Parts: sequence; structure tokens; C-alpha cells
Amino acid sequence: MASLVVLYTKPADPEGFDAHYRDTHLPLAQTVPGATWTVTRMTGTPRGGDPAYYLMATATFASDADLQAAMASPQMRETGRDAAQLTKDYGTEATMLVGGDF
Amino acid sequence: MASLVVLYTKPADPEGFDAHYRDTHLPLAQTVPGATWTVTRMTGTPRGGDPAYYLMATATFASDADLQAAMASPQMRETGRDAAQLTKDYGTEATMLVGGDF
Repeated sequence: MASLVVLYTKPADPEGFDAHYRDTHLPLAQTVPGATWTVTRMTGTPRGGDPAYYLMATATFASDADLQAAMASPQMRETGRDAAQLTKDYGTEATMLVGGDF
Repeated sequence: MASLVVLYTKPADPEGFDAHYRDTHLPLAQTVPGATWTVTRMTGTPRGGDPAYYLMATATFASDADLQAAMASPQMRETGRDAAQLTKDYGTEATMLVGGDF
């Protein structure tokens, strides 16, 4: 299995971010071939206090080759363009990681 | 569904970390009631370059109540103690997050 992980810091405009993420970004991301998305809203830390990230999106793929193919797809290009818009419009930063099984 | 996410920065001693994580830490974490663990080795970013984190561990639970019960369990206490040892012995920092469905 291979994974793409996107961690967003807390947006300046969380309501605007949430609406855009739900109505525009996630539907676009879901067109990426071979990707199964899980989106988690971070609410805190085990010891209380503010979490370092606001939202985590993980896309899993059956293999590294599938991840590479997805990264090169027009759907991912469009999703990436929208992510850049999202971070700019709502005041958040995205940290992206790729990886595989431990 | 509810999640606990642990993000480790690159250890000073990756081989020592990997061995301890695989042979001691993950088996302990897997005793935590109600937790289903996924561990991902981060290898890069979509644009190349070093990833911000070395390893990501995610525990999912059927509900927030299950997550809360797990956090209060003796097994999680022991797992947390071992995580503190792991970060100290191998030179890494752990960022922990809890969350739920988007």
C-alpha cells in the first residue's frame, strides 16, 4: 500500500475552508484514479490543548505504481491547483507527505 | 469513527528507532483496547525533497467513547511510557493529534 498525506494548519477562515473543502475540493480529490480518501478533523491532543493541524487527508493506493500514476494524472493536477487556491483563500498551510507500509 | 495520530520527526538513530518501534512499541500499542493501527513510513513529498515526518501512526476507534476509554486504559499508559522512551532514546519528536470524521 502507498499513501499521500496532506496536513492543513488551522485556516484563518475555518467556515470558508470547510465549505470549499467539502463542496469543491473533496469531490475533485475523489476523481483521482485509484485513491481512497479518509479525511479527519483534528480536535485536540491527548493531553488537551490545540492540535498542530486542523485537518488531515489521507489517500491510500494499492501500490506505489498506482500512487505515481495518480500523481501524474490530470485529475491530480486539477486537485493540486484547487489545493493551492484553498490554502491561499482561507489562510492555511498544507504539509504533504508520501509514504508506504512500515 | 475517532482517530489518534502520532507523527514522528526523523530520529537521530533511524535503525535503532525502527527496531524498537517494530519489536517493542507497536506490539504494545496493539494491546490498546479498540484500536486499529496503521503505520506509514514517510519517504518524501509529492514534489521531491525530505518529508516533514519520518513515521505516522494512526489508531482508529469505532467511536469517540472508545477513543476516550482507550486513552484512559493501562495499556495506553504503558504505550505512552514507551513512546516517551522511544523519543528520548532515538532522538525524535512526536506530535500527537486526536480527531474524528470531517
